[in-house]
This record gives sequence, C-alpha cells and structure tokens, in this order.
Amino acid sequence: MECVFCRIVAGELPSDTLYQDEQIMAFRDINPLAPTHVLIIPKRHINSLADLSDDETQIIGHMAEVANRLARQEGIARKGYRLVVSSGEDGGQVVPHLHMHLLGGRRLSDRLC
Amino acid sequence: MECVFCRIVAGELPSDTLYQDEQIMAFRDINPLAPTHVLIIPKRHINSLADLSDDETQIIGHMAEVANRLARQEGIARKGYRLVVSSGEDGGQVVPHLHMHLLGGRRLSDRLC
Repeated sequence: MECVFCRIVAGELPSDTLYQDEQIMAFRDINPLAPTHVLIIPKRHINSLADLSDDETQIIGHMAEVANRLARQEGIARKGYRLVVSSGEDGGQVVPHLHMHLLGGRRLSDRLC
Repeated sequence: MECVFCRIVAGELPSDTLYQDEQIMAFRDINPLAPTHVLIIPKRHINSLADLSDDETQIIGHMAEVANRLARQEGIARKGYRLVVSSGEDGGQVVPHLHMHLLGGRRLSDRLC
C-alpha cells in the first residue's frame, strides 16, 4: 500500500485526526498553508474528484458537512474559511487520493487558482 | 431584490447559463480567473456555506455532481480542475450568496489561499 492517505486511514502513519466515521476521515495537514488547514478524505481509495460517478458525489456533501462542523469547532465559522478540492494535474492535486482542504484562521488570498 | 445572484436566478440579469434544475443553477463567471470559470449556486438565497445546517449540506454534493458533469462537458475533466467554496470575509467570499467555483482550462496555481 503506497498511498500515503490510505496508510493514514490504516493507522500505519500517524495523523492529528479530528474526525472519523465509516466513510470519511479528517486530519490536520502536516504542511499547513493557513492557521487552520484540515484535510477531509474518503476512507476508501478514490484517485480524484473526476473519478466519482454521479451517484457517488454525495460524499462531497458529507465531507462539506464535516468541514462545516470542524470550522465551528475551530472557531473560524463566522470569520470565514474556504473549501478546496483539486482534481488532476491541471487542478494542482498533489496526493492522488481524493481530499478536500478546509482552510482558515487568517484572511485568505483572493487568488483562487 | 439586491442580491446579484438572486437577480440572475430571477432572469432580471443576463447570464451564460450552462445548467439549471429546481435546486441549483450554473453559469459562467463574468470575470473569469481561468479559461473555464463556472459558478454553481443554489437558486434559493443562502448567504454562505456557514449558514447551511448539517442536513442542508447535501446541496454541496449536488453542486459537485453538476460541477463534475460540466468539467466533462468543458473537456477539462481528465486534465484537471478545482472546486472552491469561499465562506465569509476571511474566506474571501465576494458575493454573499453561496457559490461554488469550477476552475480549469490551464495549469492552476498551487496557491490555494
């Protein structure tokens, strides 16, 4: 198993885990781009957003629900935050396991891409 | 009605609409940040992501489903793309009506925030 996120899910690599259920897991990014930088991933290996079939995309809704909850927990819900899902090379996806970034804790740049 | 996106939904302002159903609508951003820059919004006015209750966040899954379909339609699904939802002032949200950005058509910056 070479996927770093699958190894985190399996407990083979440590992570600062904030949430998990049967479907998804949330942990802090080890190279944070902002004071709050959490990654929310499906536990099952899915390469990227583009690989989700139409009836699988509801997992993005569930990931957003957990992101919202974590934003409240981190105390950034009212001041503001950003969710980002990058897919594929042009999208700038680094780890080829679908993930959503929750970013906040400072005024984020207007540059989205 | 002062919300610019509500006025687009109502047909009071023109838009290059790519998709709509009972819940959501997708149209091209008039100030595109990338060759493909589409906004996906709920038709009902919701200020921001932070205002969605837990059982309302499934709309984000539906918006992602449509974003994925539009990425295929735009021919950018395989090369890559990015979905961004900014919430509140720190998040850099400009129009206070919940929206998801679909961005692609070039190699996007690694800078997410």
